[in-house]
Amino acid sequence: MVNAETLWRDLHKIRQEAPLVHNITNYVVMNTTANALLCLGASPVMAHAAEEVEDMVGIARALVVNIGTLDAPWVESMWRAVRRAYERGVPWVLDPVGAGATRFRTTTAFRLLKEGRPAVLRGNASEILALCGVASATKGVESVHGAEDALPAARELARTYHCVVSVSGEIDLVTDGEAVIRVANGDSLMPRVTGLGCAATAITAAFAAVNHAFLEAAAHAMGVMGMAGEMAAEKAAGPGTFQLYFLDALYRMGEMDVNERLRIEE
Amino acid sequence: MVNAETLWRDLHKIRQEAPLVHNITNYVVMNTTANALLCLGASPVMAHAAEEVEDMVGIARALVVNIGTLDAPWVESMWRAVRRAYERGVPWVLDPVGAGATRFRTTTAFRLLKEGRPAVLRGNASEILALCGVASATKGVESVHGAEDALPAARELARTYHCVVSVSGEIDLVTDGEAVIRVANGDSLMPRVTGLGCAATAITAAFAAVNHAFLEAAAHAMGVMGMAGEMAAEKAAGPGTFQLYFLDALYRMGEMDVNERLRIEE
Amino acid sequence: MVNAETLWRDLHKIRQEAPLVHNITNYVVMNTTANALLCLGASPVMAHAAEEVEDMVGIARALVVNIGTLDAPWVESMWRAVRRAYERGVPWVLDPVGAGATRFRTTTAFRLLKEGRPAVLRGNASEILALCGVASATKGVESVHGAEDALPAARELARTYHCVVSVSGEIDLVTDGEAVIRVANGDSLMPRVTGLGCAATAITAAFAAVNHAFLEAAAHAMGVMGMAGEMAAEKAAGPGTFQLYFLDALYRMGEMDVNERLRIEE
Repeated sequence: MVNAETLWRDLHKIRQEAPLVHNITNYVVMNTTANALLCLGASPVMAHAAEEVEDMVGIARALVVNIGTLDAPWVESMWRAVRRAYERGVPWVLDPVGAGATRFRTTTAFRLLKEGRPAVLRGNASEILALCGVASATKGVESVHGAEDALPAARELARTYHCVVSVSGEIDLVTDGEAVIRVANGDSLMPRVTGLGCAATAITAAFAAVNHAFLEAAAHAMGVMGMAGEMAAEKAAGPGTFQLYFLDALYRMGEMDVNERLRIEE
Repeated sequence: MVNAETLWRDLHKIRQEAPLVHNITNYVVMNTTANALLCLGASPVMAHAAEEVEDMVGIARALVVNIGTLDAPWVESMWRAVRRAYERGVPWVLDPVGAGATRFRTTTAFRLLKEGRPAVLRGNASEILALCGVASATKGVESVHGAEDALPAARELARTYHCVVSVSGEIDLVTDGEAVIRVANGDSLMPRVTGLGCAATAITAAFAAVNHAFLEAAAHAMGVMGMAGEMAAEKAAGPGTFQLYFLDALYRMGEMDVNERLRIEE
Repeated sequence: MVNAETLWRDLHKIRQEAPLVHNITNYVVMNTTANALLCLGASPVMAHAAEEVEDMVGIARALVVNIGTLDAPWVESMWRAVRRAYERGVPWVLDPVGAGATRFRTTTAFRLLKEGRPAVLRGNASEILALCGVASATKGVESVHGAEDALPAARELARTYHCVVSVSGEIDLVTDGEAVIRVANGDSLMPRVTGLGCAATAITAAFAAVNHAFLEAAAHAMGVMGMAGEMAAEKAAGPGTFQLYFLDALYRMGEMDVNERLRIEE
């Protein structure tokens, strides 16, 4: 059961507890991700060195693994972090950025999904289709499919790998293989800003840190993203100013905003 | 022949076709570059791993190689990408950030220019002078020369390496060794924002993706940069807010803006 | 003696001389750091390759070493840069981001402090306590202590390692082991924006470049940070818009702003 009340409860919890979220993420979005987490109320930390990722996971309440600008040493660190997260019961969220675009990305993402046991897999439709082995055209890191096209693949991945799958799109889909939650918030400017998908992943991790019912956590995160996007779009004159109003909205979002705006459907 | 009409035609083409532009660029500007390309209408992707750059060039319509925060493994990946681009006929643009400041940068940039066959070399005057072997003082990554000082060097490099050379400055110069195009758009706030030179390079690649007449493509790119800078400066209270209005301007630039503002001279 | 007059004198000097500041810093804040230095009036350059850091230090007037996203090859480059800075008498500033959070960070920061001879050590209270070997809980890269809690540790580190220690907090502390300067400027939004601590470090380096009395330089930097934060907060609707107004404020700060706002106490 996910609604404005459960979302507000967990958003409030993040702001009270400021959970430490450890991010192994791509260069493009590190700054935006850190700011999104800070504005939400969480405590971000970025660390990628093999020498320290296990220590950092050891004090974190959630982990993000995002392959947006991966290379071999980073993949090694991702594995160390993921193993430690599994041992400690720290939930982690996988963002398979660009899966389908190159073999290196598809293979790395697939192995992390299969052997790494993420709590949530969060990607766009093209990435989810690629991970399911569905022949899929991709365009770099952008989706060329609607979220609904990826629903059967998302369900199958969720069942096979015992995780929640969260697919962003005009209407976001979140599924644990059985239930499907749809989130209809958002704005058409969002795909014009780099790193909002990556921010969605980090925010999913923050919600997972305070609520281990991951289907709920993933849906709450997409709701917050979409609502902040709408609040930002009301002020923005383009994708540049949108970015900053989006961060402001994460910071300012109140109970009334959530009650009035959330459009979620189970 | 370059004018408001040709520029608008190609800008429109970018927005229609959203060409995938593969960037191997520096850490400082990855976010800004991705956002500039998205606002322009192109599809950016960043990828630097030796394991995947060839695959990524394989689906891209243009490549950016920017040495702003280079190191040995990245240089290796640049070579792989550049070779693949040459094989596939994908135009690529070289930004020799900081050439002249250290031997490592000068040597790397010079070899990429000499052996890598870029379609366009885009830098500031100090960088172009350094690549031409003209004894040149530099100040890190900033130019200490006006663009016009670098015209003879730019012409010589263009002729020797069969590429277009684009030199940013108060008045930008673009040359193929014979013709020289001058673009007089821009604003004095622009050098106060990091990464606008790198954005110019990425935008040059986007224009080169849709128009293989690279002299035109390079001139169109500098025109768009300068006009967006003017549109941003009208609203900005300093270099901070300028950045966002600049991105908004790239997104909003219409045919009338181009007709009214473009100051280009062949 | 530090006051509005000395601060304005040195800020003016930075704007006149535009000293080149070489940064080996973390991925999260590279863009913000470069922009903060440009808005202040300095010339930033980022370079981390072992092949070039010595050359870059060779033309720089100050060096920043920030361990926010360190790994082994970067640490090797930090040492090269630091040794060269020592030989040339170039002041350098150490930011021990996240010291205390992992052994790798604590050890690396401690060795850089002990053997590298920074002019200024600039961190938050938790980091300073960790470096002093005081048992200290940390929360990733955020401080869980007030600056005043770290005063004895800061004094001890300053005396032992013959450097200035600058501790950010609601009231910033700067000490050379004897004198203590307190800066009371700032705003409560500042901890909600990623990288402002790192910006403080870079700005400290810029002031150190033009004034080798490092106690003064460090205090001037914290004053400028805090005043720019206040100026930004007057306009900002949240941490997103704050960032840009902060950069604008660095760029626009005039003598009258300094005279009216600076709250510094020796």
